[in-house]
Amino acid sequence: MDVAPESLGMVTEETLDPLDWAEVQALSHRVIDEAVDYLRDVRGRPVWREMPADVREAFTAPLPRSPAPLDAVYGEVSRTVMSYPMGNVHPRFWAWYMGSSNFTGALGDFLAAIQGSNLGGGNHAAGLMDNQVVSWCKEMLGFPASASGTLVSGGSMANIIGLTVARNTKAGIDVREHGVAAIEKPLRFYGSDQIHSCHRKAMEALGLGNRALRRIPSDAGLRIDISGLRAAISEDRAAGFKPACLIGNAGTVNTGAIDDLRALAKLAHEEDLWFHVDGCIGALIAIAPDNAHRVAGIEWADSIALDPHKWLHAPFEAGCALVRDAIAHRRTFAVTPEYLESTPRGLASGDWLHDYGLQTSRGFRALKVWMALKQHGIDKFGRLIDQNIAQASYLAGLIEAEPSLQLAMPPTINIVCFRYQPGVSGEALKPLNTEIMLRLQEQGIATLSDTTVHGEHWLRVAIANHRTRRDDLDLLVRETMRLGREIAGSASS
Amino acid sequence: MDVAPESLGMVTEETLDPLDWAEVQALSHRVIDEAVDYLRDVRGRPVWREMPADVREAFTAPLPRSPAPLDAVYGEVSRTVMSYPMGNVHPRFWAWYMGSSNFTGALGDFLAAIQGSNLGGGNHAAGLMDNQVVSWCKEMLGFPASASGTLVSGGSMANIIGLTVARNTKAGIDVREHGVAAIEKPLRFYGSDQIHSCHRKAMEALGLGNRALRRIPSDAGLRIDISGLRAAISEDRAAGFKPACLIGNAGTVNTGAIDDLRALAKLAHEEDLWFHVDGCIGALIAIAPDNAHRVAGIEWADSIALDPHKWLHAPFEAGCALVRDAIAHRRTFAVTPEYLESTPRGLASGDWLHDYGLQTSRGFRALKVWMALKQHGIDKFGRLIDQNIAQASYLAGLIEAEPSLQLAMPPTINIVCFRYQPGVSGEALKPLNTEIMLRLQEQGIATLSDTTVHGEHWLRVAIANHRTRRDDLDLLVRETMRLGREIAGSASS
Ligand SMILES: Cc1ncc(COP(=O)(O)O)c(C=O)c1O
Ligand SMILES: Cc1ncc(COP(=O)(O)O)c(C=O)c1O
Repeated sequence: MDVAPESLGMVTEETLDPLDWAEVQALSHRVIDEAVDYLRDVRGRPVWREMPADVREAFTAPLPRSPAPLDAVYGEVSRTVMSYPMGNVHPRFWAWYMGSSNFTGALGDFLAAIQGSNLGGGNHAAGLMDNQVVSWCKEMLGFPASASGTLVSGGSMANIIGLTVARNTKAGIDVREHGVAAIEKPLRFYGSDQIHSCHRKAMEALGLGNRALRRIPSDAGLRIDISGLRAAISEDRAAGFKPACLIGNAGTVNTGAIDDLRALAKLAHEEDLWFHVDGCIGALIAIAPDNAHRVAGIEWADSIALDPHKWLHAPFEAGCALVRDAIAHRRTFAVTPEYLESTPRGLASGDWLHDYGLQTSRGFRALKVWMALKQHGIDKFGRLIDQNIAQASYLAGLIEAEPSLQLAMPPTINIVCFRYQPGVSGEALKPLNTEIMLRLQEQGIATLSDTTVHGEHWLRVAIANHRTRRDDLDLLVRETMRLGREIAGSASS
Repeated sequence: MDVAPESLGMVTEETLDPLDWAEVQALSHRVIDEAVDYLRDVRGRPVWREMPADVREAFTAPLPRSPAPLDAVYGEVSRTVMSYPMGNVHPRFWAWYMGSSNFTGALGDFLAAIQGSNLGGGNHAAGLMDNQVVSWCKEMLGFPASASGTLVSGGSMANIIGLTVARNTKAGIDVREHGVAAIEKPLRFYGSDQIHSCHRKAMEALGLGNRALRRIPSDAGLRIDISGLRAAISEDRAAGFKPACLIGNAGTVNTGAIDDLRALAKLAHEEDLWFHVDGCIGALIAIAPDNAHRVAGIEWADSIALDPHKWLHAPFEAGCALVRDAIAHRRTFAVTPEYLESTPRGLASGDWLHDYGLQTSRGFRALKVWMALKQHGIDKFGRLIDQNIAQASYLAGLIEAEPSLQLAMPPTINIVCFRYQPGVSGEALKPLNTEIMLRLQEQGIATLSDTTVHGEHWLRVAIANHRTRRDDLDLLVRETMRLGREIAGSASS
């Protein structure tokens, strides 16, 4: 084939491509070298630092009109963005809940951008890899091969996907066409009082309203109370609502509690409800040999949200929604009617991946997940999950051994809630522990977050981090004690 | 500060970090070198190729259990993904509507993944840059600095954001709490019959239902008919509906038609409606000196969806939603659960960016956009948009000069619809032109798509490509004629 025409001159057309590729290449080598240093040496840097005024100031600059050399642009990125990160790539970052990324995944994102494909669909290799990664997610969770799924921006969107299919399937009318107001009996969804805030946002977005999500009290272990749930369902039926969907937690964000998924699956079956599992934190425990038993029953779900950017450490963003009934899934989102054949051949002969979610254009987030899974193998990811869970037990042991530290409850998985309690009054505890948390961070030692468990304030350590070692947890306990004494001492003096 | 503890031995803990960083570094240099070759030489490769069976087969492999060397993993990615891309980085890719990525953006995605921050919020540099890119988007469109905005996965999500704020603001009740069924008078949204399918999906997802989106006929130029719109609104008021939102097109996907945005803004004001502009294709024309006048009035919108992964050529994904009333925006989405409570200092003292959309975790998509804007300056992006629009006129001229080619209508912006018509009957045209389209692609010459305009079938060339040159369009016309003769000849012989 000889289709490359010679430039015939005359009109000079601009492009974003560099005039001098060799220069870009040399700079890119430097970017690589510095990225290697960055992750190799992360342990030696503080986990977080406050930005100085001049760095903050840089981000108030207006829209640049004229060009700047790429190496100057990179220099600024180095000085600002790379120097003052959130810190979740650091071994002692345990706040909120997120993974810690990985170098291979970063190469994946680079290559995805270089080859540039749009994963909205089409007959090209990236589309097949996207499907393959979805299949691998099904395999990891023991979900049937006949199920469907889609890679999305994260767990919140994966939950929205599952809940939308639930809504549309249980509505009893063509809700796509007529809307929620046309549903005869108002739908009710159920989850525990520990449910993640993204479900509230989903209910609101879907037009069902926050009230349609009943929060069922949880038991002492912060798992949904099944008899309370059963009672709420019959109460709602009696009151003229239509119970439609149970949302089970495979790992709550507060404490890592895992609902009794088998009991929920059975109840959903008995009551003819959709069973969705929010497995953003815990679904992947299914691949961890020592702990997989904790999520038994997840494979009975109608839909599951999981989050490769958490325990697979994919760079943001990578979430995944799986739906047992592939037809119900497609029927919820497809705007390409089945009868309307894409072309018999060529690029448009592939699957329309955008028929399984809310995006049209879609990025190639599969590649970073695929590359890391191929390189390390799933067995290693399973061991890393077991390792984090064992580290949480280890930390709980350290805490129990210290008389002035209190554990909220023994950790189920990888989330430990504790506080420094040197024998002060109840009201003094929250400011004291908040100050410990802030100083741990400001001194670059560790990043924790805090939360409320059974109505009380606790520091919270979520270990979803492939760089954390036990000695990091030893340090955390030592430094918490030191800071606690320091703050309590200065307060009482 | 000296917080890096020495490993005290005993427990050996695993990590995803390589044992030998030097090896990863060497491989990464090779990745860079091959990426440079890849984009530098893209013009010499076919725009698309069918995958051979062994490549397709590779994507059916099950979940890998055990590890593989990273260079073998990269080798497989090279052989499959990199060799059989969608093709939108190629200078002669003009199908559907997407940008063509850029090398700097790919470095941005790499760096974002290396530093790993979660843009859900927090006090760190990436969060400030995310805000800055949103501010730059406002500047580009002449939107007030007091407006809010959020970077999202793409145009579909940006439209959902705008329409959700519209719904919640116009509902007249607390729709977040009570849902759509509690709205007194059913809401009605309006757009032209050329509106993108993502709006249908948005209406369905939001529980308003597809019926609540009235498609108003468009005029000969495929712009919304304002008097028809006005009539529909009063008809709906009379029938007990509540007209709530006008959706204007700044560039339709079929032909690039731009609604009269000023007239729509005025009408929305008169009728007390929300005015949302779908500017996924055309909003950025506001930065292109020769054509900016075409989108005048966009700055009067209540909300705008724009798409940096289209005409700013950001690698997927990068969309942006802007909302004039920042309070209404936040009020639609904000939930700040206990564990995300902000602290007076430290990482959690920053903005919660997830309070402006449906995601919780958010990737650092700002970086790729920022780096390319800084490097090239906005003036150049404006010239590139003008260049694509001028190329579309140039192509239209070539088509008009060929007696056997027909132009559907003069292009408004960068989308040209045409067909090969050697004087055959109406029914023969669609298969003939489809076959031309398929052979252009199968022979690696050019990727087009097809569509229906005024009820007839046309080939469609959307030039949102910074690598396209006029000689590429000369070639397209030449090859279309050659293939047309070839196919028509063999059919009649
Ligand atoms: C239990 C649970 N569900 C859902 C989410 C939302 O996931 P994402 O942040 O990927 O949107 C989270 C996030 O931490 C979570 O912990
Ligand atoms: C007019 C219009 N609106 C919305 C979209 C959806 O944008 P995205 O593909 O980024 O979701 C498109 C995509 O081509 C479009 O052309």
